[in-house]
Amino acid sequence: MRKNLSLAKWRAGEQTIGAWLSLANTHTAEMLAGAGFDWVCVDLQHGLLDYGDLRHMLPAISTTDTTPIVRVAGNTLAEINKVLDAGAMGVIVPLVNTRAEAAAAVAACRYPPQGGRSFGPIRGALYGGKGYAQEANDEIACIVMIETPQGIANLEEIVTTPGLGGVYIGPSDLAYALGLPPKGDTDEPIHLETVGRILDACKRHKVPAGIHTSSLEWAKRRLEAGFNFVTLGSDAGFMMQAAASDLAAARGAQKRERENTGY
Amino acid sequence: MRKNLSLAKWRAGEQTIGAWLSLANTHTAEMLAGAGFDWVCVDLQHGLLDYGDLRHMLPAISTTDTTPIVRVAGNTLAEINKVLDAGAMGVIVPLVNTRAEAAAAVAACRYPPQGGRSFGPIRGALYGGKGYAQEANDEIACIVMIETPQGIANLEEIVTTPGLGGVYIGPSDLAYALGLPPKGDTDEPIHLETVGRILDACKRHKVPAGIHTSSLEWAKRRLEAGFNFVTLGSDAGFMMQAAASDLAAARGAQKRERENTGY
Amino acid sequence: MRKNLSLAKWRAGEQTIGAWLSLANTHTAEMLAGAGFDWVCVDLQHGLLDYGDLRHMLPAISTTDTTPIVRVAGNTLAEINKVLDAGAMGVIVPLVNTRAEAAAAVAACRYPPQGGRSFGPIRGALYGGKGYAQEANDEIACIVMIETPQGIANLEEIVTTPGLGGVYIGPSDLAYALGLPPKGDTDEPIHLETVGRILDACKRHKVPAGIHTSSLEWAKRRLEAGFNFVTLGSDAGFMMQAAASDLAAARGAQKRERENTGY
Amino acid sequence: MRKNLSLAKWRAGEQTIGAWLSLANTHTAEMLAGAGFDWVCVDLQHGLLDYGDLRHMLPAISTTDTTPIVRVAGNTLAEINKVLDAGAMGVIVPLVNTRAEAAAAVAACRYPPQGGRSFGPIRGALYGGKGYAQEANDEIACIVMIETPQGIANLEEIVTTPGLGGVYIGPSDLAYALGLPPKGDTDEPIHLETVGRILDACKRHKVPAGIHTSSLEWAKRRLEAGFNFVTLGSDAGFMMQAAASDLAAARGAQKRERENTGY
Amino acid sequence: MRKNLSLAKWRAGEQTIGAWLSLANTHTAEMLAGAGFDWVCVDLQHGLLDYGDLRHMLPAISTTDTTPIVRVAGNTLAEINKVLDAGAMGVIVPLVNTRAEAAAAVAACRYPPQGGRSFGPIRGALYGGKGYAQEANDEIACIVMIETPQGIANLEEIVTTPGLGGVYIGPSDLAYALGLPPKGDTDEPIHLETVGRILDACKRHKVPAGIHTSSLEWAKRRLEAGFNFVTLGSDAGFMMQAAASDLAAARGAQKRERENTGY
Amino acid sequence: MRKNLSLAKWRAGEQTIGAWLSLANTHTAEMLAGAGFDWVCVDLQHGLLDYGDLRHMLPAISTTDTTPIVRVAGNTLAEINKVLDAGAMGVIVPLVNTRAEAAAAVAACRYPPQGGRSFGPIRGALYGGKGYAQEANDEIACIVMIETPQGIANLEEIVTTPGLGGVYIGPSDLAYALGLPPKGDTDEPIHLETVGRILDACKRHKVPAGIHTSSLEWAKRRLEAGFNFVTLGSDAGFMMQAAASDLAAARGAQKRERENTGY
Repeated sequence: MRKNLSLAKWRAGEQTIGAWLSLANTHTAEMLAGAGFDWVCVDLQHGLLDYGDLRHMLPAISTTDTTPIVRVAGNTLAEINKVLDAGAMGVIVPLVNTRAEAAAAVAACRYPPQGGRSFGPIRGALYGGKGYAQEANDEIACIVMIETPQGIANLEEIVTTPGLGGVYIGPSDLAYALGLPPKGDTDEPIHLETVGRILDACKRHKVPAGIHTSSLEWAKRRLEAGFNFVTLGSDAGFMMQAAASDLAAARGAQKRERENTGY
Repeated sequence: MRKNLSLAKWRAGEQTIGAWLSLANTHTAEMLAGAGFDWVCVDLQHGLLDYGDLRHMLPAISTTDTTPIVRVAGNTLAEINKVLDAGAMGVIVPLVNTRAEAAAAVAACRYPPQGGRSFGPIRGALYGGKGYAQEANDEIACIVMIETPQGIANLEEIVTTPGLGGVYIGPSDLAYALGLPPKGDTDEPIHLETVGRILDACKRHKVPAGIHTSSLEWAKRRLEAGFNFVTLGSDAGFMMQAAASDLAAARGAQKRERENTGY
Repeated sequence: MRKNLSLAKWRAGEQTIGAWLSLANTHTAEMLAGAGFDWVCVDLQHGLLDYGDLRHMLPAISTTDTTPIVRVAGNTLAEINKVLDAGAMGVIVPLVNTRAEAAAAVAACRYPPQGGRSFGPIRGALYGGKGYAQEANDEIACIVMIETPQGIANLEEIVTTPGLGGVYIGPSDLAYALGLPPKGDTDEPIHLETVGRILDACKRHKVPAGIHTSSLEWAKRRLEAGFNFVTLGSDAGFMMQAAASDLAAARGAQKRERENTGY
Repeated sequence: MRKNLSLAKWRAGEQTIGAWLSLANTHTAEMLAGAGFDWVCVDLQHGLLDYGDLRHMLPAISTTDTTPIVRVAGNTLAEINKVLDAGAMGVIVPLVNTRAEAAAAVAACRYPPQGGRSFGPIRGALYGGKGYAQEANDEIACIVMIETPQGIANLEEIVTTPGLGGVYIGPSDLAYALGLPPKGDTDEPIHLETVGRILDACKRHKVPAGIHTSSLEWAKRRLEAGFNFVTLGSDAGFMMQAAASDLAAARGAQKRERENTGY
Repeated sequence: MRKNLSLAKWRAGEQTIGAWLSLANTHTAEMLAGAGFDWVCVDLQHGLLDYGDLRHMLPAISTTDTTPIVRVAGNTLAEINKVLDAGAMGVIVPLVNTRAEAAAAVAACRYPPQGGRSFGPIRGALYGGKGYAQEANDEIACIVMIETPQGIANLEEIVTTPGLGGVYIGPSDLAYALGLPPKGDTDEPIHLETVGRILDACKRHKVPAGIHTSSLEWAKRRLEAGFNFVTLGSDAGFMMQAAASDLAAARGAQKRERENTGY
Repeated sequence: MRKNLSLAKWRAGEQTIGAWLSLANTHTAEMLAGAGFDWVCVDLQHGLLDYGDLRHMLPAISTTDTTPIVRVAGNTLAEINKVLDAGAMGVIVPLVNTRAEAAAAVAACRYPPQGGRSFGPIRGALYGGKGYAQEANDEIACIVMIETPQGIANLEEIVTTPGLGGVYIGPSDLAYALGLPPKGDTDEPIHLETVGRILDACKRHKVPAGIHTSSLEWAKRRLEAGFNFVTLGSDAGFMMQAAASDLAAARGAQKRERENTGY
């Protein structure tokens, strides 16, 4: 079947950069998938979209070699199976607290006997190609998020869950878990230390580690820290970043014009 | 009824800045409408959306005071009426070649006896409020585009069409009309001269003039030139501008990291 | 093929009552189709819906024997063909000004040699059943609206257009045509007289006549006047009628309660 | 951030009247939100709609000051978080049986440390405005339904769950719980008594109490009984109420006409 | 209320043939429902569709007497209630492992006191007709799938769960459960034996038994084996079967033509 | 820019086989595009879909090298431009009667100075790639349908219209034009003769010729006749062909079983 190019890089210890898709739109998915990112992640948890949109967005991403990943809203077999059947090559499962939850997430991504995924990969097999049934267990990345107090406490147990494709840090929720305001790109020592501790556990156990950022500056810092997959920004975030900056500048020009002309 | 705030500014000779909506998405419409633009224009001509999307986007825009404008795909009574009934406060009609076409566009925006708009403003009246039937003819802006060889030739006749709410220049099509490649933000003398000629005709006849741009730099130049309504950029454009720029920078950081670490 | 039950009644001189569908919703279509009306009309002209919605609503209406009619946004072969292919048993064409326009509408509803409808009734034939190709020309009602000054002036020519399935009056637009405000349920003498004149022309030429109303009172008056198909109200109208009336009464009760209790 | 106007009234002991949205439609949401109700509730449990519709309906409601509430289909963190992220100011959680379930619902509505809501309020913060992260825990109402035998048995424990924004009674399910047919607007003594008992528990513990009705008469009675939030009716219910009543009357007129004219 | 025609046949020991709907499309649902199958099953588990599509497809199926069944993605009260409220006359629940899970599925399909279904059958009652509240518990079929190792181990306990409307075998997952590759139409002795054992348990306890197939040949074999409900194929499967076969043949003709003509 | 692979073959005199997409579904588009056809045509004229669907289907087709073609509903600049902007590499324009109409269709597909296409190929350029603005006029196929009496009469004038990418025959409408019932796959001598005459005119003027069929048999015959692009069948047609055939056979098996067992 089709190789999971991002997973292959993570397994080889390489670094990748991804984009976050939080908008229900086939075209933004196709554009960002074509912009040069290694992977894109369609966010069913906080994104303003659901499965009905995903179904259109995954084919649009498949016009490129960019790896399609989906963050599910919850850790259920039903939802994880559905996004895999639709053609996701990886899932990110939020708010994983325990090794049992991590193992359940992995099992939902694996056909028997390794797991309990139900067979029926309608679009998954069309996209994955010949050999999907045989190789999907190897190619599909199950990534769990460590971002809650309980998750941090169970760090080692979670990271060593067999079959894990990666660990992803949601730094805003992590901030909450540490008693801080929900700011993910932060220099708070305890936050930096905890992120470092999670990264270190991943490195020791050879589990790919990823993290969310909301700015170029922090994406660079996370790359420098050695993360394997770093989210640079989101569709909506990129849009508002440029719009706000350009509008402020244009308003300045307009103001000068008004002062010159009286209008 | 609700006042058309942008039209009021144009009539007062003031300058405004707008954003272009080419994505079928309720949330991007709400975000950009809330970003501080004077108006937003939902593009049914070149945008990847249609009436089915417009219907959700106009209410989202109506959570703000930003003026909702719609560019129709063609100059037909049916389409213009449908977008006005949905709550547009202005329409931009592309590719207007003659005074007859301009007059038809105006008539499609006006209830009898001024025009031939059919009555049934289901959402228009909900959004516009009390007095819609009486005042819509005054508050709704009919804006025609001058961008074809024939349109340029008929400049004076078009600009003086009674009831016109404004003239909008599509500089890419205008470039084509002048034998140039379809670049709108251009210093080609004949292009600058033609844009200036259209603007001048508008100024002489006290018709608000607007123009499309794809960059902050050109938005500023068009404001300096005296246009009343200038499009600063589009949802998709803003998104790709920031994504491309940030990704290039992040790739640089990644490369340095790879050189340092061997990955 | 399936008989057009409403058209059969009109041809037999009987009276029918219909409901207007202006909301993009499969369930309201199914509910109103099941409520006992003779026909329902999905309004692509002023309704907040388009073909994408119609496609779901027509099957829902087809769970009942209620006749599905569609008002198109404009008098084009393309649109009329598309709604017939989707399973409409009748079309209402707005703003017909001349006999030529009426004849064009009829031709768009008729397969050759009677007209120029293109063959491909994908859902029309599924719903219509065996014999659709042979009998559709007889069973599909082409109804034109007379509601403009020109249409009134050409009344006799329009009404006598061969193949016409009916004439429908939009009384709001008719009011505009007569120099009145756009109120359809009106006692203005010139309005009543014109409505009567159109009805009379239909009766003389044995063409079924219909009219829009927005209230029970006027629906009754139009039935008494002898119209064959009378629109009693719309989905949105019914909803707001009951909501407004009940809310006002409940607010009264709330106020009394507040006065009693101090809250 | 934006104040939850309905919650403020409930906390002040005032009474409010709301409408129920069970139709997947942006326009009916906007119309009913604009009709004068204090709040509207989009029903993801029994309504014929899902998150994909909610996403368009919440912005439409946000064109008004009416408080947007959502009834979720189930008591899961994933679903509750998703509707809050979309901009709901309150959630109604059905079928709550125990204090633990009530506490879980509350926790899903609260950011840490009060609860376990995950951070990412994409549209919630856009709608809520500055300060959302800080104040959402105070402004978002978590309302649980008491309507099952177990729920009734655990009445006191549920009502006293810390952080509860209100208790809502589903009188049809409550009827089932009491061994009655599923009629909500009922004079059955045991039903009246149980409703009274729930209301009394709420009053004693200063928890706002609400109840569903399907008629003006019962809405009035529930207001008189002292409920803080009373549902007067639903979009679909209002529509069918007026349609059925008007159609019956019109059929009467038609019958008289037929007797007079022979048609 | 409307009778569940397929359930009646199963109860009478008769055999039925159904089709699987895995495509999000109102028209394919209507076509296949009209093609002569006894029942059709909309697949929310592996199908490329969700509730938003179901809502349009169920009315389209209701234009015929074909029984509408829905396979849910998971065994939750919330999802099962939602599809029943939308008008499903039966649900198929996948991956049932224990009697407790089977009992939970049944309870989700039954109003109290037999179960815990919440009352609000908005479209269910419209489609089911008068008496729905009283008779739905009898007419709605709750079908559980036995297809996991645990399910096979608990065969007798599951089959004898009170209120079960049927047992359905997913032969691909069953193959996995037996250590085989996920091929459902298979002559592997252990697979045939297990299918036979499940069928036998159903026969002994008078529970209707059904099974999925992907080919005419196996549908015939399963009918011969005595299954009560056999899935012949799916929308997507039928389409690709004919397309692949016809295209191969046409390519042959094209090749011959090329050899003859040089093109 | 990306080459139009089908157009290249036609220009080289080669033969191609395509499939017709009449269902609003992203997945069937992706499946059939991946099935080995040279091109697929999304049918906005008779298909049960519109632009809103097209927007999702074109990216799905773009996961393959299959050429995406769109049949528009009418011959208007607005519609043709919109489907090209969405990424169609060819358009089929129905019911072309005259050389002027053919020339208008061609002009709508060409940027100035060759035509009047407006610039703004949002997704077209994303899919087409670098050089789109320069090369689109060469790569985009404008195909007109000859199928009306007037069209047949103007055969030579239409075929020789400069810039034509092909002529497509709708044999059902052609049958109507010849006074026959609307059967496209027909041995009627006058139909065969007319088809031959159109094909001959195309061959003489080196214009690629295509034709619709509804069966393998006729696809083969049209290939043998020398057509360059032959439609083998449609999504809905393929599905119903296999479903009907398999169901009839399964019903036979069921009947035998019933006779054997008494059920």
